Amino acid sequence: MAVHFKHVAIVGVGLIGGSLGMILKRRGMADHVVGIGRRVENLKTAVELGAIDRYVADAKEGIAGADFVVLATPVDTYERHLKEWGGLLAEGTIVTDVGSVKGPLVAQAEGLVSERACFVGGHPIAGKEKTGVAAGSVDLFKGARCILTPTARTDARALATVREVWEAAGSVVLSMDPFLHDRVLGAVSHLPHAAAFALINALTEVKERQTPELDLLAYAGGGLRDTTRIAASSPEMWRDIFLWNRDNVVAQLDIYVRHLQELKRLIQAGDGPGIEKELTRAKDVRERLNKA
Amino acid sequence: MAVHFKHVAIVGVGLIGGSLGMILKRRGMADHVVGIGRRVENLKTAVELGAIDRYVADAKEGIAGADFVVLATPVDTYERHLKEWGGLLAEGTIVTDVGSVKGPLVAQAEGLVSERACFVGGHPIAGKEKTGVAAGSVDLFKGARCILTPTARTDARALATVREVWEAAGSVVLSMDPFLHDRVLGAVSHLPHAAAFALINALTEVKERQTPELDLLAYAGGGLRDTTRIAASSPEMWRDIFLWNRDNVVAQLDIYVRHLQELKRLIQAGDGPGIEKELTRAKDVRERLNKA
Repeated sequence: MAVHFKHVAIVGVGLIGGSLGMILKRRGMADHVVGIGRRVENLKTAVELGAIDRYVADAKEGIAGADFVVLATPVDTYERHLKEWGGLLAEGTIVTDVGSVKGPLVAQAEGLVSERACFVGGHPIAGKEKTGVAAGSVDLFKGARCILTPTARTDARALATVREVWEAAGSVVLSMDPFLHDRVLGAVSHLPHAAAFALINALTEVKERQTPELDLLAYAGGGLRDTTRIAASSPEMWRDIFLWNRDNVVAQLDIYVRHLQELKRLIQAGDGPGIEKELTRAKDVRERLNKA
Repeated sequence: MAVHFKHVAIVGVGLIGGSLGMILKRRGMADHVVGIGRRVENLKTAVELGAIDRYVADAKEGIAGADFVVLATPVDTYERHLKEWGGLLAEGTIVTDVGSVKGPLVAQAEGLVSERACFVGGHPIAGKEKTGVAAGSVDLFKGARCILTPTARTDARALATVREVWEAAGSVVLSMDPFLHDRVLGAVSHLPHAAAFALINALTEVKERQTPELDLLAYAGGGLRDTTRIAASSPEMWRDIFLWNRDNVVAQLDIYVRHLQELKRLIQAGDGPGIEKELTRAKDVRERLNKA
């Protein structure tokens, strides 16, 4: 039995919220999709692109009567949004989110969403450096992982419904404890972003101190470009991810710094076999990642 | 007047040496190309692929009568090679190399090559994770930078000839002091490689300590894959690069670690505006790199 909603409310019609709206409408999974936001130009684009049917600025008006609410705003705004309308949700309304951090945010949402409604935490792993609905697409989630993070309080039918939505979007859906999610994503996503941001800033300092006479980055090859591509990601979004996943990111940055210092120690000591051992360990693991 | 050689000797017929042989032969720039090496299977492949006309194991035999010699073995073997045949080179023979480190190696080569011959240091920036002549191609250097590193001792005509060879290969040729080369490449290439190798090893430790129950890297997205692609590079080659460019790599790793620690400090302190400032600085620089 296919999932079908009468009234979907998408709070935050950006890259992720907008793409999900396109999919729900294109596949006929929703009679009516309303977008809630403040950037009128973006919302108009969302209507033109078929991501939403109409838009409102007032979230209370937008969620009234909704059977499915997608919270797709920056994670730092969840509290403000859910305090405004979380208590007003009707019996059986399913609320899900798309945030990149889950543990503390799922706990917060469960406390702010009406007892009558069902919250299901979700994280489609389908970012881009680009933002806004104009960069959205019905294919954005195709083949990508989507992690749902049910807790002891999660309604099983609501979980199954949210899973069906993401499967319809072409995602590979997994379930995981929200705090485990944050450890895992801290490692495979948040730490690499921190590494890339810091690497670019380090190169800026190297340029200023060591090669002020030339345009250092003009000598960048494919290696540096790949390694730092994600340093062009949204500073506001990543500020919030780092802060909401603070403990994991700090602990994982410590581990990363220790490995850099160990490699530095081996190089400084001229320890060829030691360096080769470290690099071989890395190469072996990285090659398995290619095959995965 | 186009460059033409009677007898080219390529010492080390791998990805770089082999591709250069293919270009010299395909473009009719050499009457005869001999490959010098020890891995017979690879050398046979080089003949089949048209990278060399024939091969010998004895370097002295291979360089006898050569007017152009390309040293394309791992940088750590330069001393051994040049001690064996550097003093035997004929009047006016041009010798060039393709190593990723220049300062100390150019000085070493200038001391070991016969006074009658002309050494010109070179570094085509066209690596791949793959190695061996089988991965070679006449297009390998097309559009890629090639840095030549003349010194006060470099013969101007030899420099012009080597430049013509790389321009014929489709490279954008630049000249730079060999020690400046090592600072620049340390920053834009060696440091990112160290960062990628260490990041993979850090993730292995995170997995063992924080998520032993799951296959952490199975959750990797495009960001991690890009950031660590170069961690699949040759451990032997990168061991040698790190050792030969030791001082720059160590100093630049220190700068990188300081930036990671500063970002960690801001995250730990919950300093949202401070984090955002760091990330915005990185994003602005990285976006200029996209446009370069």
